[in-house]
This record gives sequence, C-alpha cells and structure tokens, in this order.
Amino acid sequence: MAEVGVEYVRMGEFAWAQLEPERGAFRFDWLETVLDLIDDHGLNAVLCTPTATPPRWLVDDHPSILQEEADGTTREFGSRRHYCFNSEAYRLETRRIVDALADRFADHPSVAGWQVDNEFGCHGTLRCYCDDCADAFSDWLAERYEDPDELNEAWGTDFWSQRYDSFDAVLPPRHTAADHHPGQLLDYYRFSSDSAVSYNELQADRLRAANDEWFVTHNFMGHYEALDAYDVSESLEFASWDSYPTGFAQELDDPSSDELVAGNPDQIGFNHDLYRSAGDGPFWVMEQQPGDINWPPYSPQPAEGSVRLWAHHAVGHGADNVVYFRWRRCLEGQEQYHSGLLERDDSPGRGHDEAGAAASELSTLPTDGAVDADVALLHDYENLWATGIQPNSPDFDYFDHQRTYYEALRSHGVDVDVVHPSTDLSEYSAVVAPTLYLVDDELAERLEAYVAAGGQLCVSIRSGVKDRANKLLESRPPGPFAELVGATVEEHESRHPSQAQSVTYEGETHAYHTWNERLDASEATVIGEYDAGEPAGYPAIVRNEVGAGAVTYCGVWPSDDLARRLVADLLDRAETPRLDEPLPSTVRVSSRGDAAWVVNFGSEPVSVTAPGAADRLLGDETVGAFDCAVVDAPGTALSIDTGSR
Amino acid sequence: MAEVGVEYVRMGEFAWAQLEPERGAFRFDWLETVLDLIDDHGLNAVLCTPTATPPRWLVDDHPSILQEEADGTTREFGSRRHYCFNSEAYRLETRRIVDALADRFADHPSVAGWQVDNEFGCHGTLRCYCDDCADAFSDWLAERYEDPDELNEAWGTDFWSQRYDSFDAVLPPRHTAADHHPGQLLDYYRFSSDSAVSYNELQADRLRAANDEWFVTHNFMGHYEALDAYDVSESLEFASWDSYPTGFAQELDDPSSDELVAGNPDQIGFNHDLYRSAGDGPFWVMEQQPGDINWPPYSPQPAEGSVRLWAHHAVGHGADNVVYFRWRRCLEGQEQYHSGLLERDDSPGRGHDEAGAAASELSTLPTDGAVDADVALLHDYENLWATGIQPNSPDFDYFDHQRTYYEALRSHGVDVDVVHPSTDLSEYSAVVAPTLYLVDDELAERLEAYVAAGGQLCVSIRSGVKDRANKLLESRPPGPFAELVGATVEEHESRHPSQAQSVTYEGETHAYHTWNERLDASEATVIGEYDAGEPAGYPAIVRNEVGAGAVTYCGVWPSDDLARRLVADLLDRAETPRLDEPLPSTVRVSSRGDAAWVVNFGSEPVSVTAPGAADRLLGDETVGAFDCAVVDAPGTALSIDTGSR
Amino acid sequence: MAEVGVEYVRMGEFAWAQLEPERGAFRFDWLETVLDLIDDHGLNAVLCTPTATPPRWLVDDHPSILQEEADGTTREFGSRRHYCFNSEAYRLETRRIVDALADRFADHPSVAGWQVDNEFGCHGTLRCYCDDCADAFSDWLAERYEDPDELNEAWGTDFWSQRYDSFDAVLPPRHTAADHHPGQLLDYYRFSSDSAVSYNELQADRLRAANDEWFVTHNFMGHYEALDAYDVSESLEFASWDSYPTGFAQELDDPSSDELVAGNPDQIGFNHDLYRSAGDGPFWVMEQQPGDINWPPYSPQPAEGSVRLWAHHAVGHGADNVVYFRWRRCLEGQEQYHSGLLERDDSPGRGHDEAGAAASELSTLPTDGAVDADVALLHDYENLWATGIQPNSPDFDYFDHQRTYYEALRSHGVDVDVVHPSTDLSEYSAVVAPTLYLVDDELAERLEAYVAAGGQLCVSIRSGVKDRANKLLESRPPGPFAELVGATVEEHESRHPSQAQSVTYEGETHAYHTWNERLDASEATVIGEYDAGEPAGYPAIVRNEVGAGAVTYCGVWPSDDLARRLVADLLDRAETPRLDEPLPSTVRVSSRGDAAWVVNFGSEPVSVTAPGAADRLLGDETVGAFDCAVVDAPGTALSIDTGSR
Ligand SMILES: [Mg+2]
Ligand SMILES: [Mg+2]
Ligand SMILES: [Mg+2]
Ligand SMILES: [Zn+2]
Ligand SMILES: [Zn+2]
Ligand SMILES: [Zn+2]
Repeated sequence: MAEVGVEYVRMGEFAWAQLEPERGAFRFDWLETVLDLIDDHGLNAVLCTPTATPPRWLVDDHPSILQEEADGTTREFGSRRHYCFNSEAYRLETRRIVDALADRFADHPSVAGWQVDNEFGCHGTLRCYCDDCADAFSDWLAERYEDPDELNEAWGTDFWSQRYDSFDAVLPPRHTAADHHPGQLLDYYRFSSDSAVSYNELQADRLRAANDEWFVTHNFMGHYEALDAYDVSESLEFASWDSYPTGFAQELDDPSSDELVAGNPDQIGFNHDLYRSAGDGPFWVMEQQPGDINWPPYSPQPAEGSVRLWAHHAVGHGADNVVYFRWRRCLEGQEQYHSGLLERDDSPGRGHDEAGAAASELSTLPTDGAVDADVALLHDYENLWATGIQPNSPDFDYFDHQRTYYEALRSHGVDVDVVHPSTDLSEYSAVVAPTLYLVDDELAERLEAYVAAGGQLCVSIRSGVKDRANKLLESRPPGPFAELVGATVEEHESRHPSQAQSVTYEGETHAYHTWNERLDASEATVIGEYDAGEPAGYPAIVRNEVGAGAVTYCGVWPSDDLARRLVADLLDRAETPRLDEPLPSTVRVSSRGDAAWVVNFGSEPVSVTAPGAADRLLGDETVGAFDCAVVDAPGTALSIDTGSR
Repeated sequence: MAEVGVEYVRMGEFAWAQLEPERGAFRFDWLETVLDLIDDHGLNAVLCTPTATPPRWLVDDHPSILQEEADGTTREFGSRRHYCFNSEAYRLETRRIVDALADRFADHPSVAGWQVDNEFGCHGTLRCYCDDCADAFSDWLAERYEDPDELNEAWGTDFWSQRYDSFDAVLPPRHTAADHHPGQLLDYYRFSSDSAVSYNELQADRLRAANDEWFVTHNFMGHYEALDAYDVSESLEFASWDSYPTGFAQELDDPSSDELVAGNPDQIGFNHDLYRSAGDGPFWVMEQQPGDINWPPYSPQPAEGSVRLWAHHAVGHGADNVVYFRWRRCLEGQEQYHSGLLERDDSPGRGHDEAGAAASELSTLPTDGAVDADVALLHDYENLWATGIQPNSPDFDYFDHQRTYYEALRSHGVDVDVVHPSTDLSEYSAVVAPTLYLVDDELAERLEAYVAAGGQLCVSIRSGVKDRANKLLESRPPGPFAELVGATVEEHESRHPSQAQSVTYEGETHAYHTWNERLDASEATVIGEYDAGEPAGYPAIVRNEVGAGAVTYCGVWPSDDLARRLVADLLDRAETPRLDEPLPSTVRVSSRGDAAWVVNFGSEPVSVTAPGAADRLLGDETVGAFDCAVVDAPGTALSIDTGSR
Repeated sequence: MAEVGVEYVRMGEFAWAQLEPERGAFRFDWLETVLDLIDDHGLNAVLCTPTATPPRWLVDDHPSILQEEADGTTREFGSRRHYCFNSEAYRLETRRIVDALADRFADHPSVAGWQVDNEFGCHGTLRCYCDDCADAFSDWLAERYEDPDELNEAWGTDFWSQRYDSFDAVLPPRHTAADHHPGQLLDYYRFSSDSAVSYNELQADRLRAANDEWFVTHNFMGHYEALDAYDVSESLEFASWDSYPTGFAQELDDPSSDELVAGNPDQIGFNHDLYRSAGDGPFWVMEQQPGDINWPPYSPQPAEGSVRLWAHHAVGHGADNVVYFRWRRCLEGQEQYHSGLLERDDSPGRGHDEAGAAASELSTLPTDGAVDADVALLHDYENLWATGIQPNSPDFDYFDHQRTYYEALRSHGVDVDVVHPSTDLSEYSAVVAPTLYLVDDELAERLEAYVAAGGQLCVSIRSGVKDRANKLLESRPPGPFAELVGATVEEHESRHPSQAQSVTYEGETHAYHTWNERLDASEATVIGEYDAGEPAGYPAIVRNEVGAGAVTYCGVWPSDDLARRLVADLLDRAETPRLDEPLPSTVRVSSRGDAAWVVNFGSEPVSVTAPGAADRLLGDETVGAFDCAVVDAPGTALSIDTGSR
C-alpha cells in the first residue's frame, strides 16, 4: 500500500460481527494487529464505527430496532442499514460499541480519526415509519411547536379536516389513499434528517470524549436528497463523500459515451463544492471508484486514465485526501462485482497503477492552497424536499435545476461555492439562487442588502412561493422578494413536453423547458420575452437595479445555452473574471491557491495556453483524452482551445 | 361573488373538524354566519355533508373505520376518503353529524339543497378489503343467492376447486397468487358499488327527513368506473359532476396542443350526457375547472376563453348550473397548486373574468329547453366491470370503445343520450350498443322488439358473450342476439399491434384495431370484410333487416373514419337529421330546446351558416379559437365550415 | 374423442372440491363413471392428483398452509397454487387424498398413469416466505452444513456482519432495505426447488405403492426458472411439459408476425430437448395449445396449420404423446378465454381438425425411433439462479444466452441434447457450454478429459467465475478452466447499449452485445479481437488445442451471425454432419430414428431436396406455410431451399 502512495487506510465500517461476535465478547485483537502494521509502515488509519450493520444476535435481542416501510413492512436483517435512528435500544447499543472501540484505540498512534457509521440513508433508509419513529416525531413536533394549535396553524390543518388535538395524534406519513399533507411531509423530512443528525452527533461526542485529537467525519453520498449535510457536518471536523462517476453518469438522461466511461465533471464537481461548504473547508473523497462497479444498471470499464483524472479533479476542487474503495475486490457478499485497486488474485488492476500515478504527482503539486470562489450558488435541502413534495410536474427536479446554473457557471471557468442561503454572502461578487422556494422576510432582507451593497444576484423560477411550513404565501411569488426583483408572477404553468417553449433574450431565440412564469414587471426591465405558445408576448426574464447592484429574475427553466448567456452577463456585471469562450461540457478548470487544474473528461485532446510566465506544474499544452494538467495561474487566465468543437 | 354572477355557493365538504372539533362539541355558528351573508346577497347555498374526511379524534375512537388494501395494508388517516362504506360504526357517526347539520339548518332560507359527501371513490377508495367489507359481502351474497349452492352454480366454482359451503367462507378478492374468479370479482364490484349507493341513500334520507324541499345531489367524477351512477342517482334529485377538461386530456393517448389547453369536447360531453341520463333530467357541473389544476402530470394554463367555453358547452348539453371549484386558491393543504377564480392575493384570475362573462351571457340565453336526443348509446357499468376483469388485451377499454361510437355520433352533429340498456328505447330513432357483454333473454327480446318496430340498431364487438354472473354462454356470441343479428362469431382474437388490421366497407379500406371477430353470416348481409392478415375474406360487418328496422353488427373496433361511416349510414336509415359533413374533432354542436350551441375547442376559427331566419343569440358567423356561438335553430340545420381542414 | 385420434384423456388436476366436497366425504363415483366410459372406448386415462387447489374447507381447517410473499402478505384462497410445499399439515392432507385416489383406482384398467399436481411454481409460487418455510430452510441448512460456522465460511458472512450463530437464525430472504446475500439467495433457491422435489416424490411414492405399473409424470412449464426439472424427474417415469407457442412468442423482443401466430421453433424446441434429457427419454407434451389462449397480453388466433405443425414438431423432437389442453372451452372460471378443441357450443374448432389430422398422420409414421444427438448444450438451473441473483446488467439472461447458441446449432440442422453438466459427455462429438458459472475442480477435470479425448468444446462468457456457494473464486475467470482454455479474463464489463460493440472473427466484423471480456491469451490462439471502443485490440475469442481435441472460448455474447459462424467451425472440427447452408429461423429439421421432420414455422414455402433413395413419408418437395414434411433420411442430409431469403 505504501508503495502505491496510500497514506490513510479506512477500516471496519461493517465489522460489528467480527468485533463482537456475541454480546460482550469483544474481539479487537485482529484490528489492533492491523493498526500496528499500519503504524509500522508509517501510514495512518481511519477507523469506522460499525453501526451500519448490527449483527444478527443484536437484532434478535431487540427486534424493534428494525426499520419499517410506510406500509408497515419490516426492513429485515439480511442486508445493511436495517436499524432505526430513533430506537432508544439501538442508541444504547451504539454507545456501547462506540465506547468500547474508542477506549481501546484511544492511544493507538496510527488512528488519525474516525468515520461515523457509513452512508447514512443509503438504500432509502433515511426515513423510517416505525412506532419508535412515530413517538420520536411527536416529541420532535412538541419541541418545534408550542402546542398543537400552533402546529394546526403552521401546517394549515383545516384542509381536509386534518386537525390534531395532540402531538401524539400525529403519525408518520404512512400509507394513505391520497397525498399526504405537505406540512406534515416537510416536517417529517426535517425530523428524519434531524434524527440522523443527532445519531451522528451521539457517536461523534463519544469519540471525541475518548481522544479529542481525533478527527471525526462521515462519508456522504453523491447528490443524496434526504439528509441535510450542512446539519450533520456541524459535528464533524470535515465532510467526506463517496464518488462513483460512472454510476452517477447512468442517472443522467441519455449519457454520452464519454460520460459512461469517465462520468460528468459537473455532476461530480457539484458534490465536491457542496461538501466543501458543508464541512467548511477541505473535504475528503472517502470512497473513490477504482474501476468497474456493481450497483449501476450497466458496468462499463472506466476509460483509461479516468481513475487518475478523478483524483486530480477532486484535489482541484479542494479535496485533502482521496481514499479508494476498495483496496481489493471482495470475494464474498453483495459487492463481488465491485472492483478494487487489486484484483481478486491480488494482482494490480488498472486503477491501482493510476491511483499510484496520481498520488505520486500530487505529492509534488501545491495542494495546500484553498479554493476561493467568487460565486455562490444557493442550495437548501428544505427547498429540495418541499419541491419534491409538490413538484407540480414529472420533469421538475431541484437538483437538476440547480445543475443547469452550476454547469453554466463552470463552463465559464469560475469556481463556485454551493452554499446554504444562510451563508454570509458579502464576499461573493455574484450569487445564483435557483428556486428559493421556502422563504421569510429575513432572507429577503439579507438578499436586498447583498444587492444594495453591489452584489449581482440571479434568482430563478419557483422562488418566494412558500413560508417555512410549506404553505403558500398570500402574496404572489416571489413574495417577499417582489420588491427586490421588481416583478411578480402573474401565472405559472408546468408545460407538457409537446407544448411550444421558447423565449427571446438579447435578440436571440432560446428554448426553455418544464416551467414558465408570466411576469408582471412593475419596476424591473424586461430583458427576455416569450415568443411561442400561449404566453407569447409576456415578460419572461427581468432585471432590476437596486442600490449598487442588480438582480436578474429568470422565469423559465432555461436551455443550457440560455443559462450560459445569463450567467455570462451576470459575471460581467459583477466584474468577475471568466474565460473568453465557454468550455465544452467535458472540459473544466478549477483553481486552488495559485494553481489551476485543467481536467479533460472527453476523448478528444484540448490545448491549454497559459499566461506568459506561468509554470506548467503537470502536463504540457495538450491535454489528451481523460488527462489533466496543472498550471501555476488562475484558471480564468487560461485559454483553452478544443479545436473544431 | 354576486357581481361575477355566482348564484350558488357550495360549502363544507371537508369541514367536519371545524364543525365538530371534538366529539359532540358542535361549532356551527361560523357556517350560519356565512349562510346569513349569502342570504343577504340574494344567493343560495349548497351545503355538503362533511363525511369524506372523518377527523382524527373520530378515527382514534373507531380505528376499524379505516379502509384496507387488498394486501391488508390500512389506508391511514392523513389524506381523505379513509372511511369504509361498510363500517357500521361509521354509519352511526354519519347519521349523527348529518342529523345535527340538517336539524340546525332545516329552516335557513339560503340553503337550497345538499351535496352528499364528495366524489365517492376518489383515489381508488370505492373498493375496500377490510373485515367489515368481508362480513358485508357475505351478507350481500346471502341476499342475492338463496343458498351457497346457488352461488356455486352461478359463479361456476367447480373451476379450480373454488366451491363455497357458506357465504361466510367467501372473502373479498384479497391478494392471491393468480387471477381471482371472475364471478367473485364481478359480484365484489357490484357489492362495492351497492355499498356506496346505500351509504348515499342513508344520508339522502336523513336530509329529506329534515326538510323535504331541499334537493339532494352528489358530485360524481369524470368517466369514473367503480360506481354505478344510475344506481346512486335513484336517491338524488339530480346528478352533478366535476369537470376538469385539461386534466382529462392528459389521460388521452398523445393529446393535441389544443386538447392540452382546452380539453376534448367529447371526453367532457360523454360525461354530461351520461349524468344527464343518470339523474333523469338537467344536471349540474358541481366543480368546473377555473384555471390550472394540481392533479394531472402537467399543469398547463387553460387557453384564453376556455373557462367560458366550458360553461357554454355544459349548458348546451343540458346543465342547469355550473359551479366553479374553487372560489379562491387555498393556501394550505394538498391542493395548493389548484387555482381558484381568485388568486392567492384575492385578485381575480383569468378564470374569474371568463366565468363572469359566461354567467352574464347565459342569463340572456334560452336555457330552460330540454335536450331531446334522437339517438341513444347504451352504457352499462356492469359491462365495464366485466370487460375490465377479463379485457383479453392490454388495449381493450370499455370507455374508450364507447367513445369511438360517441365521437362518431357527435361528429355528425346529433345529440346523444348515454343510457342504461334497461331504458325504454321506443322514442329513439337509432340506438348504438357497443359491447353489450353481459346479457339475458329479456334484453334480447327488448332489442328485437325495438328493431322490429322500426328501430335502427348498431351492435359492436364482444356483445352477447356472458350471462349476468360473468360466465360464458353456451352458445357462440352474440348469444341471445344471434337471431336478431343474423350472424354468429366463429372466432375472435385480440390482435397484437404489429399485426395487419384492415377491412373493406362499401368499397373502401379502413383500419381497425385491438379486436376482430370472424363472423358466420347465416342470415345477415355481409357489408364489411377482412382484407388483411389471417382473417382476410371473412365477414367483419353485417346487416340484418328485421321487421321494420335493421341491425348492423360490427365485428371490429373501427377506426374513427370507419365509425363515422357506419354511424352516418345508421342515421340515414333511421332518417335522423345530421350534418352534411362530419365536424373536425375540435368543433361540436348541441341542441337544447330550440337553440343550438356551437363550441370551438380548437385554435382555428370556423364559420357557422344558419338557416335563413335563425336568430344568432350569441356570437356571429365566425366562431374564433376557444369561442362559442348560440343560434336559434336545430344544430343539424347549421352548416359549419372549417376552411382548409 | 376416439374419432379425432385421442388416446389419452387427462383429468382431475383441480378437482379436489368435487372429489371431497367436505372432509372425508369422498365422491369418486363420477370419476369412475368417466373412467369406465374411457375404457369402453379403448382409450386410456392419465389421472392427476388434485393438490394444486386445496378447497376452501381445507384452508379453513389449516390457514397456515397458505403461502406468503417476501413482504409477509398472504397468498389467499381464491385462485390456485395457494399451498406451501413445506407445510407439514398440507403434506398430511396430500397423503390422505392421494392415498384415497390411488387405492380407489389401483385396479381400474383405463388408468395408465398419473400426473402429480399441476405446473409446480406457476404464478411465481415456487418460492414462499412463510414461517413453515423459515423452519424448513433452517433444517435444510443444518443438513447441508455441518455447523453454522461452515455456513458462515461457505457463504462468506463476514461481509456486512451477516454472521449466523445458529441455523435457526437464518430466515428466508424476506424484504430488506438492500440486496440479499448472494449465498443466502442461492441456497434459498436450491431449498425451494428441493421442497417441490420432495413434495413431488412424496406423491410419486404413494402412487407407486398402490400400483407399480402406473407411470408417474409431472407437467413442467416452458423455460421455467425456479424449479430444477432434472431433480424432479428423478421420481418420474418421464417428463412432460405444457407448450403454448403463441404465448411464449410474446415474451420475445419484437416478435415477428409469423412468431405471433405460430411461435418460434427454437423457443419450443429448447424445452422439448431439455425435458427429454430431464426425463432421460421420450417426453410428453401434456398441454398443447389448441387455439387462442387467455394468458398472454394479446390473444391472436394461431395460423392455419399450426396446431398440426406443433404436434409434428414435438414428435420430431422425441415426444411420445401430445395431449391437448383442453378438450372443450370451459364456460366458467379464470380460463374462459382459453380455447379448447371444441368450442363452447361443442362444435369443433380449427384446432380440433388439425389435431385429428396430426394424429392420423403420426399413426402412419415411424415414431418409435430415438433422438440421437451428436451435440450437447450444457444447462444448469444453479447457473441460471446465480446469474439471476447477480446479472450485473439488465440485459443478461441465462436462458436467452443459452438460446443464442441453441439457435446457432439448430440453424445447422443438428440435433441437440440440453443436458446438465454432470452428464457423461463421451458420446458427444461437440459440446457447447454457455456460462458455466458455478464450478469446481471436478467439473474442470471432466471437461479436460473430454477435450483431451478428442472432444470439441465451446465455452462462453461468465464461465469459471464462482464456487458452488456463489462466492467469487480467488483466481481470475475461467478459474479452474484456465489451463484448459489457455487464457484468463483480464477485465470484464457489461456494456451500455449505446457503447460501440464489435469484434473481428476470421476477417469479418461481427456485432456482440451485453458483455465482453478482455482476454489474456497466455497459451491459446487468438481467433477474434475487439475492434471498437475501449477494448479495441484485446483478444475476444481464443482457441486452445488440448490433446486430441480443442476448446474455443468466446468472451462476448455474440450476434446470431457470429454464433452461427462459431458453431459451424466447432461442428466442422468435430466432423459432425451439418447442413451446407444455415436455415432461416422459421425452418427447422430434427431427426428421430431414421426419419427427419422438416417444420416450417413461416408463412413462405420452402423446398426440401432429399438424397436420391429417401422415401418421402409425409408431404412432398414443397413445404408450405406452417406445414411440415417427414423424410426417411437424416436431417443433415437434406437440402433446404428457401428461395430468395
Ligand atoms: Mg436544517
Ligand atoms: Mg346496477
Ligand atoms: Mg440440483
Ligand atoms: Zn423508525
Ligand atoms: Zn371496508
Ligand atoms: Zn411457505
């Protein structure tokens, strides 16, 4: 391992049955032996608490710890993640095993820190509908609302006679004939996320109590929806996440042949930038795909070079460490079709050599600089949940909508922080806020202040629609932002794909899709207009100057072209440096400290021209297929030529 | 409201928790206050019984009232329609709240009548599989059959050893490994419909006992399948239904852009004509779509003019009142994305102004004439259920098949009564009977008498196949109609879409789809023949003269063209007036009293020429996009020119 | 019946309620009357045990006999196959009714033998998840593994902490959050198959105890996956199966118009050849489709001639008897839309006359010769199950992959035995082994011996991957076959359909799909190479000479063309006679004794030239649409001309 450049070895995330084969009979010696070995080679260990897989004997002792589906079916023992976050019995068991492990290894020199559990919520397990959850939900509601009438008022339970006399009367959203109440659903989603947050905190606290020099992290998943990573990360030293580019690519509509074998850089990059913000600093990739994997529909082999490429891409976005999953293919169990750096016969696979190359290169590169983004993209799990509860169209997806703007920003070579709306925005020259759905006056005031002080803001469809309880505001959207935006939404519609959908913006016609809003531009300047179908002639995009800044409101889900145009204009108004020409979707640049990483996720070479004096730290002018380069210059100062494309 | 032309205000359909926030603590004052206000403005109220949403405390008192799925999963509190029609406990609670409301408002001058409950069966709740239903089903069977052996004989339970020794041994059709017995299923469907019928009757009786001048109605749904509206309506003064044209349109295969924004006139008209028959006279639209709505996949805005158009269309089909749902967008609960005549900020939406225009126009038009249709289309829920139980093709749908003939009739400008086969047919010049599936000798005799007396009858595929218990008849189809039709079905088949499917009729080739029957035309004249694939050369369509009339039997599911041709010939033989040229599918005419309504559901204008002396009561010669006109002349006397189409 | 050529009448397969309408009250007289009648007409009876449909009273006495789904839902009374194989209560009831029937008819002259139960596993009932199954599974595991640690070792339960302390702790694979353990699943599939095997054996033993001259058989289903027919057949005199060609055809991707009306000859023939091997000799078709049927999505009428064609096809593949299901359309119950030889009014349908023609022709043809195939195709239910547990691609299907090679063989006119890998192969000149997935050294040694002795072997993708417990082998595939094959698999991948997929073989480019393996050809000769996409240049197909024979390893799922080429080369090396030109997919030839049956499943005629002296036993040179011919010559000696195709 040391030879291939491994610095950290992660272990034990599902090992409870080996660590405690029967109650109280701890078997930690094997783990200590391995840790000693790690220490002998000058490596470090990241230990994992094994709580994602309570063993059979523990389930037999406490059958109630098992999760339940909304229709009451038990999620049985036999795979993983079968425990409920709200089981008091399981929290006691958790404390027991975590304390035992922490105590035993508190002084071991090789243990650098811990990963709590593993991928909270994987396989749809973040939300559980069992009786323990029913009780905990009632308690959570009692904490949030003074009395049941406050809940009735907040949710609006007059509708369909949903009124509750007590918090105990409120159940999880189990199987019903028709839709659940959106107030109940949103609070259940919050409650479920909070349940994992407090479960994580319980473990983090125990670990730190044993050794307060340990770091504590958790390995999040890619574009995972049910868990608020900002909240979890409050108990973590840093966030980490598990990156599987070729698996994610198969979740795209109609992935290209390059995406199938190397992934999409923005799909990955969005997660890098999100978890960097969540953890408020450098993040780790805790599981980096090392070859073909078992869980997507298809399992193509990654392109030659892509394992190395992914490592550089992560570091360029601010990763401190890239850990591969797994070292060696596992011969047994559910993940036999998941490759490792070593093949089943211990021979090195392609991923092994590429991981080694990346490690060796990165050891010579300046990787201690910070990412210093000029632009923020506002992202809020609660908006994701609320729009998911009432998407009002089969084609509306919060994450996809966010990515439209993210891709546009990245195509111009700028770095992006994906941040929660509560973040201090004063240091950002430009802010993009796609679908600020749940709002309050305080948020409106903060955004107004940002713009008035010179900020450039872009707000998109479905903003200012609801209060925090998921009730419609009495005023038309964008509600409390109306004055800032200088316009209101007269009518919105979710368009059937067969309906004509286009707008003009700066003299050119652009497609939009999924959603439109007919604006009433009381104060703002109309800069885009519908030119097809029923809304033809209505304002679609407006701009409003406020104080030293301005806000653009885009009332459609723009095509990629239109999004790039809108974002270019935003950056230019903000005087934020950008590339002269937008990049193709396979090529990206990101800046860290003084250096810029250029990554090519495509099968065609590109040529990179750097400012005169800039050192080429890795690679040269031509960046080949699935290759990368590092230049000692800001990313937006480069000139990248993709030939005929 | 009065300003916009509102005459009736419907209220209270889900208000149980507000009317009785805890057991016995009735809070009716707020409702009385509103009723007083309504009275002050010279308006009338339609009150609704609030039984569609039993409140939480009631469910806590009687958890057994909840419905269950076929797999035993409970349909929990949290949405609506969670009660079982066969819960004795709930029938007692129903009586309690209905009596209390009826007694309190028996003398209030503004209350014109009542709507019982709301949309029986919405969200698939007409059929329940709970233990109360199991008991009630056994009782229902005991009522229907003298002893279990009669049931065994009727259903045919020798098949797969399904014999029952007692009625108690028969369960609802809960989850089984393979298909349920078709005799059991059909009786369960009858039983389920009867359960709602008797539940409705219970409420209607209590209301009339309090004030016998009140009308009682129920708001049915569009093309709803599980409830026999004829049976329910026996306890109602008139039927009403809830019309959502843009929602229904999305249930069509490949809806056109006009249909997406205005609906399909025949899809709506079929329901108008059905509920007019069910209620035996003028009907109401109790919920008319006022703008965009929340429940279809997509939510496009209705075309400009369509809200007004729908009101005229309904009245032209015999509606006495058109009530909009809802007055104002509701800020809370599951239907926030359902528009109202007023927007969330109380400002009027487009629908508000259009509804006002329609009300004002209709107040000047002659709307007290009756619809007097020359043609009947026979429609029977039991045939719908039985063909749904054994469709024998993924493409067979009773409602769709009926609509093929309905559209053909409407394309010729004739009015249609959609009636139950038990209806007296003697006043109709022509009768179309698509799929008279379950039959008996009495029906055969009535149809023979109708034809012998000069009637023109058209019978279609899958007629005369089964007895009333859903068993095959021993004789080949059309069974008891064989002599009338003068032909029998030698073989039928459900065709794979990739198989060649065409027939010749009167020298031209026409497509058919889904189903064919190779006929043996013993007595009848062959007027259509297969000309493709295996059945080529076999008779497909036959005509038989019987007494003073004739019967046409069509052994395929005809293309729209062929259906129009068949129906034109039928009308001509019946000497029923029709338009010279069939209308395009977006334009329809309907006659009421002496006036004809011309409605244009398309985005292209049409021109309407009336007989010399006819007054134009609304509009002029050109009927624009989504516009309508009213002429003082029979609809079939008009000449409608659609230009190039 | 006698007139139409019926020799055997099958009866009673669902008649328990008629045979024992209440407990102990046996009513066998009606059956005896029928048997007497059969005897009077010189016919024979095949009686069926009625255990597929325990009657209502029996279920009421023992509700525990009902099966359960993986989520705990009961499979209720109301259709068929609702009993659990592992219910001790039901095994006692089974013994009771079987003994009573066997005793009563032990001496009846017309009873030739018995069919046990009916279509084990139909409607997904082979696997049950009830508590009786849980107990029986634990016992089965205790039998298979010495102690729980052996099970832990065999399955590899360290993964995800799945370790078991006792056999009782292991449950059926009920609903879990994520995938089940592949070791547990494979053993559950084995256990489930064994449960039906022992249930069948219990019945067979009782029947033979009553009359040891009776034959005992069971009617298997077409390409049924969950039951090991080889194992079941060990208790049977011969295997029989139920053939529904037009139903099976609708399970093909994009079936042709000929397939829709006559079926695919290889889809049917594979089953003939499989069940002939399973029963180790002539088989029966116990249910032959007589016309249109009720259970596929669509129900087209079979082509004229096809009922006769299917009978000849079966006999040409070695069938001893072809029994039709059913004699007369049943007027009641779930299968009303299933035709019979007689129509509902007792008039003969087309199938009746065709069945009569076939019977009359076959009575003059030499049908006592045996099928003597030169080629074996290795087929193993355990490989089917294990690849089904981890297909690693939505497009991988064991049966489809087998059929690619089967069709290639059949296109060359050779007869094929579909046999279990444990079969003695020494008499076969060539052996095709698609996906020998689960392996051990003993199998490797047997195959090596076969090749060394001069055998020609073709092995395909995903061979030598796993041990018998469904764990990956430590060595790269093909594991223990690596020396024999002279190559190993460096990397495999399941390809996304949009990825380029082709190889060159003997100078020509051929498509492949679904799967590829980049080979490391240490010893073997590379005979095929990738020429597209990432694997371009890697070896794809290799050949290795071993002793007097050779083995070909094909590392892709070949196109039909490539498969035909590979198989032709294999046959030529084996000096196995084959046709000069491959047949189109609608035309097949099979040899039995000295005669060859030529069947034409297409709508275009073909012409058949026989060697000079050969007698034409049925038909002449031209074999028309859906027709057949029999020639007194080996099939591969014929020359079949399909005209322009
Ligand atoms: Mg939060
Ligand atoms: Mg009825
Ligand atoms: Mg076996
Ligand atoms: Zn829970
Ligand atoms: Zn019920
Ligand atoms: Zn069982």
